Amino acid sequence: MRIGIYPGSFDPLTYGHLDIIERATKICDKLVVGILINSSKNSLFEVEERVEILKESCKDFNTIEVIAFGGLLVDFCKENGVNSIIRGLRAVSDFEYEITLASINRRLAPDVETIFLMGRDENLFVSSSLVKEVARYRGDVTSLVPPYVASRIQQKFPS
Amino acid sequence: MRIGIYPGSFDPLTYGHLDIIERATKICDKLVVGILINSSKNSLFEVEERVEILKESCKDFNTIEVIAFGGLLVDFCKENGVNSIIRGLRAVSDFEYEITLASINRRLAPDVETIFLMGRDENLFVSSSLVKEVARYRGDVTSLVPPYVASRIQQKFPS
Amino acid sequence: MRIGIYPGSFDPLTYGHLDIIERATKICDKLVVGILINSSKNSLFEVEERVEILKESCKDFNTIEVIAFGGLLVDFCKENGVNSIIRGLRAVSDFEYEITLASINRRLAPDVETIFLMGRDENLFVSSSLVKEVARYRGDVTSLVPPYVASRIQQKFPS
Amino acid sequence: MRIGIYPGSFDPLTYGHLDIIERATKICDKLVVGILINSSKNSLFEVEERVEILKESCKDFNTIEVIAFGGLLVDFCKENGVNSIIRGLRAVSDFEYEITLASINRRLAPDVETIFLMGRDENLFVSSSLVKEVARYRGDVTSLVPPYVASRIQQKFPS
Amino acid sequence: MRIGIYPGSFDPLTYGHLDIIERATKICDKLVVGILINSSKNSLFEVEERVEILKESCKDFNTIEVIAFGGLLVDFCKENGVNSIIRGLRAVSDFEYEITLASINRRLAPDVETIFLMGRDENLFVSSSLVKEVARYRGDVTSLVPPYVASRIQQKFPS
Amino acid sequence: MRIGIYPGSFDPLTYGHLDIIERATKICDKLVVGILINSSKNSLFEVEERVEILKESCKDFNTIEVIAFGGLLVDFCKENGVNSIIRGLRAVSDFEYEITLASINRRLAPDVETIFLMGRDENLFVSSSLVKEVARYRGDVTSLVPPYVASRIQQKFPS
Repeated sequence: MRIGIYPGSFDPLTYGHLDIIERATKICDKLVVGILINSSKNSLFEVEERVEILKESCKDFNTIEVIAFGGLLVDFCKENGVNSIIRGLRAVSDFEYEITLASINRRLAPDVETIFLMGRDENLFVSSSLVKEVARYRGDVTSLVPPYVASRIQQKFPS
Repeated sequence: MRIGIYPGSFDPLTYGHLDIIERATKICDKLVVGILINSSKNSLFEVEERVEILKESCKDFNTIEVIAFGGLLVDFCKENGVNSIIRGLRAVSDFEYEITLASINRRLAPDVETIFLMGRDENLFVSSSLVKEVARYRGDVTSLVPPYVASRIQQKFPS
Repeated sequence: MRIGIYPGSFDPLTYGHLDIIERATKICDKLVVGILINSSKNSLFEVEERVEILKESCKDFNTIEVIAFGGLLVDFCKENGVNSIIRGLRAVSDFEYEITLASINRRLAPDVETIFLMGRDENLFVSSSLVKEVARYRGDVTSLVPPYVASRIQQKFPS
Repeated sequence: MRIGIYPGSFDPLTYGHLDIIERATKICDKLVVGILINSSKNSLFEVEERVEILKESCKDFNTIEVIAFGGLLVDFCKENGVNSIIRGLRAVSDFEYEITLASINRRLAPDVETIFLMGRDENLFVSSSLVKEVARYRGDVTSLVPPYVASRIQQKFPS
Repeated sequence: MRIGIYPGSFDPLTYGHLDIIERATKICDKLVVGILINSSKNSLFEVEERVEILKESCKDFNTIEVIAFGGLLVDFCKENGVNSIIRGLRAVSDFEYEITLASINRRLAPDVETIFLMGRDENLFVSSSLVKEVARYRGDVTSLVPPYVASRIQQKFPS
Repeated sequence: MRIGIYPGSFDPLTYGHLDIIERATKICDKLVVGILINSSKNSLFEVEERVEILKESCKDFNTIEVIAFGGLLVDFCKENGVNSIIRGLRAVSDFEYEITLASINRRLAPDVETIFLMGRDENLFVSSSLVKEVARYRGDVTSLVPPYVASRIQQKFPS
């Protein structure tokens, strides 16, 4: 059985993430969407809120489990029988980072395969940090995130 | 059922290819290794020879089928129920080419997903064209290709 | 007065080219679409055909002139009062090539400015060589080139 | 009428910026040099000082207006009739960032075109952060910034 | 006499660094391993500890001197008769940074040559920041750093 | 003793090559400038002419030997006691190619070190293929190649 994890900060979830999640469900029998617990001061949503948002946004996929996790990704994989790490590919600098990560993860856990998927062209430039930048100035994020996320963002930044 | 194709020229098969093939068999229920029929003048092995070499090299994998094909990759996928294209990632210029190809293939066949896998670090710089270059000058290819391929190369360039 | 040239092979004209042409007309008072005369054996359309196709496709823009030219681009610029070279930006390897070209053209003609424009996201991966590849195998090119070009391509490859 | 904005932090203004500004004045009927108001702790000059420095350095160009602005760039464009965003191209990682930005800005304001210009070869590696680094250690910045900026820097770091 | 400096943070020393150091000793008659004194809050080892670790790790090379230094690298070179800066090459984003640095250093000190060396393939993805990430979660760093560094790291993070 | 080889096609020698050659002489006790014998149909100068041009251009360096060689570079190194391969770094796509080459050469000859040097900023975009392109259309090559090479080119293309 192929059990995958799609790790990320998801602060917030974007159309780019959802795109990859949907593709990943076709490859994995079970997919864990894993929200990294880190203490960045610039986060828009608390980890608990992100779990909530992801659960709501993925509720139609019955093979998806949303969890928050700390520590090393490979440790989580070993402890939970995850054999695939799902990553989305975007631009080049991204790619450098991705192959570095994949190389290191393989070194630490040779049995866990990293699988790269490519989002739709229109999502190639969408990122959470961009969404945050636009949201902070009350810009329109409706082409970047799903409606539910947009409404949650609006609650953070009432006009 | 996930049916994948790993397309390429395989002229000749390298350790880099075998690395990806092995990883792909874990992701696909059935894997087609598809040798592109093209009429390059610089080929080392005829298409028939490449089919032979790949069949020999993959004989221990019972989910692999080796075929030669012409025409558009996406047409082959549609006609043969292939839903995944497997690609190996190496260097950056490569990456550019790969996402272009993936983007176009998706445009032509939206239901076929391109899955990128990364080979071992020691295979990141191995390519068929390199093998040919080394082989033509009677250099040592034993760290680049499996023993069977090395022996076939030696028959082409007897010392 | 800003007189620009958008040079290229246009073999064939794609939606990516048209996208840049349209943007360039807003920046230049007059725009020359310059078809490079080169004797590649792999061309799909003769230079005369390409002139014809471009004239037809740009007929609604009254500031555009379509010409074919040989020799150095900077010489053409000097002789025709062109002060801007328009280039479309796509992927990274492309970018390398583009800044090299721009640097050299500036060295040869310091008064001619190279202006880079970016096409729509959906055109980032569209190229003439891709269109030719798809067309040769009777693939569907309607999302890559305008209808008139598609019909001209179909005449070349009757099914 | 083409009204452009050249946005940036300009902390401090470098020869690289001046190079682009000069080129931009030839393309735009009017050019706004827009200093982003952000509250970075590592800034060398206050926003007011940067406005002062840019006004002094651009005083010979009668089509240039220097302003400081907060909020989203595209909002500023819409409110001020700006139809072109001018960006300078340097290295590759830069390029990635630039096309992402251009793609997003177009999504938020489709009528505003991003125009990329390339600085002189000798300015390809010049950046404000480099100038700050050199200045902090009393290194020689005279090949990196105009004389007026150099004197302002010297006042910050008296030897 | 060729006197080189291999500058870096070395927080901590990795197999990647040692690889370059060893190669550099073959090119330089004398090699200074220069630890940059900077006040990052995220450092794992104090500068004094890093000096200690590097001295211990390089004790078998009799042409190596380990020092900590502040200020501009080129100033250190001028004051100490250093005529070569040694840099290791890894991935592309890295490369961009490296040529920028080399270009600037040459501008500030034309007589000091930057020499780039490439580490072994297995070290291409090893970095200090990766080691710190793994170490913080008590992951296994033994394939990333020499045994002595691993034991020093373990003292920082007792399990 | 450090014996280096600077391999290339040198068709023709450019200021970029001379820049690297000069830097390499400071690092190597002896430097072989090695002209690759290949049978490209697009060469401007015959191998014999290139040897002649390089000998003339390097006559003031008494540690340089100019030779033409066929076969694998590493074989030449082993047979001639060469322990360093000198390469010039330019743009990114170049960099990819260079690290691939260096990785492979190390695999074939672990004792031969590849040393990368960076040319002056103004030579970053200069290449032999560019010179040929400009020369074929009687463009001005005097900023790209030394005077002696320019005169040799002019003999090939009398106006």
